[in-house]
Amino acid sequence: MKPISDILKPLEPDFKVFQEKFADYLKTDTPLLDKILDYILKQKGKQIRPALVLLSAHLTGGINDRAFRGAILVELLHTATLVHDDVVDDADMRRSLPSINALWKNKIAVLIGDYLLSRGLLLALDNHDFAQLSILSRAVKEMSEGELIQIEKSRLLNTTEEVYFRIIQGKTASLISSGCEIGGLSNTDDPEVLQSLRILGQSLGIAFQIRDDLFDYITNEDDIGKPIGLDIKEKKLTLPLIYALRQSSEKEVRAIKKLIERSKKAAEFEAIVDFIKEKQGVEYATKVAFEHAELAKERIRTFPPSIYRDSFLDIVDFVVNRTK
Amino acid sequence: MKPISDILKPLEPDFKVFQEKFADYLKTDTPLLDKILDYILKQKGKQIRPALVLLSAHLTGGINDRAFRGAILVELLHTATLVHDDVVDDADMRRSLPSINALWKNKIAVLIGDYLLSRGLLLALDNHDFAQLSILSRAVKEMSEGELIQIEKSRLLNTTEEVYFRIIQGKTASLISSGCEIGGLSNTDDPEVLQSLRILGQSLGIAFQIRDDLFDYITNEDDIGKPIGLDIKEKKLTLPLIYALRQSSEKEVRAIKKLIERSKKAAEFEAIVDFIKEKQGVEYATKVAFEHAELAKERIRTFPPSIYRDSFLDIVDFVVNRTK
Repeated sequence: MKPISDILKPLEPDFKVFQEKFADYLKTDTPLLDKILDYILKQKGKQIRPALVLLSAHLTGGINDRAFRGAILVELLHTATLVHDDVVDDADMRRSLPSINALWKNKIAVLIGDYLLSRGLLLALDNHDFAQLSILSRAVKEMSEGELIQIEKSRLLNTTEEVYFRIIQGKTASLISSGCEIGGLSNTDDPEVLQSLRILGQSLGIAFQIRDDLFDYITNEDDIGKPIGLDIKEKKLTLPLIYALRQSSEKEVRAIKKLIERSKKAAEFEAIVDFIKEKQGVEYATKVAFEHAELAKERIRTFPPSIYRDSFLDIVDFVVNRTK
Repeated sequence: MKPISDILKPLEPDFKVFQEKFADYLKTDTPLLDKILDYILKQKGKQIRPALVLLSAHLTGGINDRAFRGAILVELLHTATLVHDDVVDDADMRRSLPSINALWKNKIAVLIGDYLLSRGLLLALDNHDFAQLSILSRAVKEMSEGELIQIEKSRLLNTTEEVYFRIIQGKTASLISSGCEIGGLSNTDDPEVLQSLRILGQSLGIAFQIRDDLFDYITNEDDIGKPIGLDIKEKKLTLPLIYALRQSSEKEVRAIKKLIERSKKAAEFEAIVDFIKEKQGVEYATKVAFEHAELAKERIRTFPPSIYRDSFLDIVDFVVNRTK
C-alpha cells in the first residue's frame, strides 16, 4: 500500500493553498479563540476529507475558489464534530495530542465546536452558496442523528446489521459523501454527476468506518493511539461482533452479551475477541469493507482518466487497508 | 407589572399555531430522539424569543408562513444553545426540571444540541430562505463567541464594562435582535425597517441580560430556580460587580478579588454582596437596564400603533422588571 503522502502528491500545490486559506480563515480577534484554533491546526490529521473535495473538483474539471471553499467548509465541520466527539466520548487524546476538552475542559470544547460549525456555515453564506450549505447542513443533521442512534442502540445491545449501516451512514459516510458532492458542485450542476459523486462518497465512507471499527479487534494500542476494545467497553456493537452474534445460538448470544455488559477487564475483552475470531467476524467485516471500496472505485473509474483519478483510486485502497 | 400571559393575549391564536408547528417539526423516526425532544417541549420556558418574532411580524404587516418559520427557527437555536449551555455550566436543572445532560448525560446533550441546530438551519434551507439563514448563522457565531470571551475573561477577573457589553451582546442580544429582524423580514426587505428592528432587539437583549445577571444579587434561590451567587462562584463578573469595582480603590479591588477567588462559602458571597450594595452596583445596573429598555421602547413607538405594538412595549417592561 502506498503511503498517503505519495498518494496525495498530485494534490500538493492545491493542498498548500488550502492549508493557507484554512489557517487564514481561522484567525479571529479573540486571544483565547486564536490560541485554541492554533492548537486545532497543530492537531490536524491526514485531512482526507478536504483532499476528497479537491480530488472531486479535479475529476469534474479542476480546482477553483468554490472548491477551496468547499474543502475549508468540510474540514471545519469535521473538526467541529471531532471536538464535540471528544466531549461525547470523554476522550483525553486526539491524534497523539491532548484533546480540547482535556486541555480546556468540556465547557470550552462544546462552545468551540459550535463556533467552528457556525464559521463553516457563514463561509458558505457570505459567498451566497446556498447549494453547498444545503448539502452540508444535511450532513450535520445526519452525523448527530447517527451518533444518537448509536448511543440508543448500544444501551440495548441489539444493533442489527441494518441499524449498524444506518449509524455509520449517518456518523461517517454523510460528510465524506457531501464532500465529494461539493467538490463536483464547484464545476457542474449536472445532477447525474453530482449523484455519482455522492454515491461513491457514501461507499467510501462506509468502507472507511467499517475499517475504523475493525481497529478495535485487529491492532494494538501502540499502533493506533486509542485504547483497544474501547467500542466494547462503551457497548458499541460494530460489524465484526454483530456478524459473530448473528452466527450464534441463543445460548451463545446470551453468554457473550453478559461478557459485554461487564467487559471492563482485559480477560473479558479477550474472550469476546476469541468469540469473534471463531465466528470469522473480522474476515466478514473486512470483506464487506472491500466490497464497498470496490463499489466506490467502479464509480470513480467512470470519470475520465487523470493523475487525480489515480490518486482517488489509491485513497480508496488506502482507506480500506490502513492499520491506523 | 402585567403577567406575561396577559401581555401575550393578542398573540394567543398565533402562538397556538406556532406551538403546533414547532411540535410537529420536532417529530422524528428515532425513538430516543422523540423521547428527548418531547421532554424538551415539556421543559419549555416563556418562549419570549418566538413571541418577539411574531410581534415583529405584526408590527410590519402581519403573520405569514415565513414568520412562523422564523419563530420556529429562533426557538430551535435558542433551545440548542440552552442544551449546550447546561453542559457548559454543568447545570442539573433547567426550568425546574432536570436538564438534558443530567437525565441523559453530556454525551447526548452535546449531540442533541447539534441536532437541533442543524434542524433549525435545514428549516430555512429547505424553504430556500437564504436571508433568514444568514441572519441566524451569524447569531450562532456571536453566541458562542460571547460565551467564549466570558470564560476567557472570568479566569482573569478583569472584565471591563466594555467587555461585559461585548459578551452580553454576543451571548444574549444577538439572538433576540436576529429574532426581531427575522419577524420583520417576513413582511419587508426595507433595510431601514429591518435595521430598526435589529437595533431595538439589541437594546431589549442587553436589558434582558443585565436583568438576568442582577438575579444573582437581588433574589433568593426559591424565586428563580437557580442557585444564587452562581456567577460569582464561576468568577463571572457582571455589571453590578464591575461597577462596584470601578468605584473602588486599588486596595479594595485586591481584597474583593481575593474573596471572589475563593468564594465557595456563603459568608464570602455575602461579603461580596455587601460590597456591591455599598458601592450601589445593583442600582447602577438596574438603571442601565432601564436605559436600554427605554431605547427599545422608543424604537418600537416608531411603528404604527396596534394591540401588538402595545404587547411589544409591555414585553420590554416585563423583561426589565421581572424577578425571575
